[in-house]
Amino acid sequence: MPDLERRIANDPTRFRVLTGERPKGLLHLGHYFGTLRERVHLQRSGVETFIILADYQVITDRDTSAHVADNVRNAILDYLAAGLDTETTTIFTHSAVPALNQLMLPFLSLVTEAELHRNPTVKAEHAASGRALSGLLLTYPVHQAADILFCKGNLVPVGKDNLPHVELTRTIARRFNERYGDTFPEPEALVTDTPEIPGLDGRKMSRSYGNAIALSMTEDETADVIRRTRTDSNRTMITYDPVNRPGIAGLLSTAALCSSSSPQAVAAQIGDQGGGALKRYATDAVNTFLADHRARRAELAADPAIVTNALHAGNERANQISEATLREVRERMGMGYANL
Amino acid sequence: MPDLERRIANDPTRFRVLTGERPKGLLHLGHYFGTLRERVHLQRSGVETFIILADYQVITDRDTSAHVADNVRNAILDYLAAGLDTETTTIFTHSAVPALNQLMLPFLSLVTEAELHRNPTVKAEHAASGRALSGLLLTYPVHQAADILFCKGNLVPVGKDNLPHVELTRTIARRFNERYGDTFPEPEALVTDTPEIPGLDGRKMSRSYGNAIALSMTEDETADVIRRTRTDSNRTMITYDPVNRPGIAGLLSTAALCSSSSPQAVAAQIGDQGGGALKRYATDAVNTFLADHRARRAELAADPAIVTNALHAGNERANQISEATLREVRERMGMGYANL
Repeated sequence: MPDLERRIANDPTRFRVLTGERPKGLLHLGHYFGTLRERVHLQRSGVETFIILADYQVITDRDTSAHVADNVRNAILDYLAAGLDTETTTIFTHSAVPALNQLMLPFLSLVTEAELHRNPTVKAEHAASGRALSGLLLTYPVHQAADILFCKGNLVPVGKDNLPHVELTRTIARRFNERYGDTFPEPEALVTDTPEIPGLDGRKMSRSYGNAIALSMTEDETADVIRRTRTDSNRTMITYDPVNRPGIAGLLSTAALCSSSSPQAVAAQIGDQGGGALKRYATDAVNTFLADHRARRAELAADPAIVTNALHAGNERANQISEATLREVRERMGMGYANL
Repeated sequence: MPDLERRIANDPTRFRVLTGERPKGLLHLGHYFGTLRERVHLQRSGVETFIILADYQVITDRDTSAHVADNVRNAILDYLAAGLDTETTTIFTHSAVPALNQLMLPFLSLVTEAELHRNPTVKAEHAASGRALSGLLLTYPVHQAADILFCKGNLVPVGKDNLPHVELTRTIARRFNERYGDTFPEPEALVTDTPEIPGLDGRKMSRSYGNAIALSMTEDETADVIRRTRTDSNRTMITYDPVNRPGIAGLLSTAALCSSSSPQAVAAQIGDQGGGALKRYATDAVNTFLADHRARRAELAADPAIVTNALHAGNERANQISEATLREVRERMGMGYANL
């Protein structure tokens, strides 16, 4: 067990986690195995967790915030169905927490434009967007620093790709502390080395590729989307070959993840029964795996007040904490007059 | 009378002015003749006025916010002494108004990095700073758009230099309205063609040049700073010659502004009495002109609660207005869930 994970296990109450995502669509199996499972694990180990639904970051690279309310509601249903508990986990949205957003201002003064341009995620997202770089996309790593530091989060679960974000947050915390006095922790990155979750076409599972199984699908919808997967014409033998048979490999990986097996073992089990049999197997594996989640989700969805209250409570708590932090920041910066 | 000024005079209640400054030091005669007098005029003509003390913009190009509280307090004393009335004029600071600052986020999504780079004031301030361009300096025109639009300001008094700021604010308002529905006015610039106010050395009066007469100086301090002005060795005749005799020209202009005269007329009056006589004349003119202002200022300063209450009331009003605007922005953007 690496040192950081040992320290978390030994004294979970020393840690405060900030994590989250952009509400751009339905959560899918990739989210489940990539982050959601880990969040539930951290919560159960006794680490206080803050989950931000980064609704303003939906518009970093697009002109519309359409569907954001549905996406927020659906994400919260999946959080709760997966086992996140609003007694110990704070779920909130950017747009509801003005004092958090205000931290952008002093934090923007602590970084140079050149540092913002060097961020590899900004570069990659800009390239993928095919649009002119917006002011929001350029500065969103600073906004992320505000997300983490508003609650003095000191632990941030990230994939390796996002390490530069945590590094910039550490830089901002350190520079603020140097200029204005000790205020913020320098958060540590908890690198989650989950293997990339393949989608139904073998590429990374992603809403934008249309290769994802949403946690909220019905059993029939799941069967349908799996049935439409392109496999190949080789009807003889199912083998796990991600390079040459990406569709089959995606189905094998999905089935394996959902049945705690390996893609190779699933392939051996299907043998020469062909693509149709593999699809039925994968459909069963996914639907069995998600049955409890979906049942809890349906129960939660039946009472719209449950999500509303969860978000209300989370936003209220995020506001309380961010207002206390902002008061402290004002004092540190000699702007105590604004605390009247 | 130009068209805009006629419309203001005809129906002042249709207009809401946003103006202000960075609290970087004491207000001086340049501020008085450049903007303060105009603000009092607008207020008296019945236009509702918002004055922002842009405390976060103090750190666009420097590492410290030292003295900002003193500067805020002194600016408010000068505002009140000059005749601004907190019954009709709202005086507030950036740092106290989170919902205003939150508008930065959606507004940053509406501009490209290239548009930010093109802003001539950002370029000039960056060059003058001699430092790496900070994220805050690059994005501060967007912050200014939030200053203007949070209260749906539709009139912004500016010097010609700052027209691009108003243009960007109009762009942001227009793009927001196009994407999310009609929400913000496109503010008009009220170009104040006040001649540049010369300092005691003939350059533009500026705190950073050390050539300024602060409104809050005592008569003796005023005499002292004028006495230290470099004139020239030509003792024969006082003439108004800004190019070859900048020190004398600065004194003549200052004396003329304070006595509703012209530099040439003052020069003629001094004639061959020399630099010493000119300095005594200028000192008298300034001290006479500022006598009432300084007396009112001293009276106001005697009760510290006056400034505190003015700022408290202004910040409270700015918060109310910005929270209402933010609620509307959230609804427009489909983020009404954050209005719980």
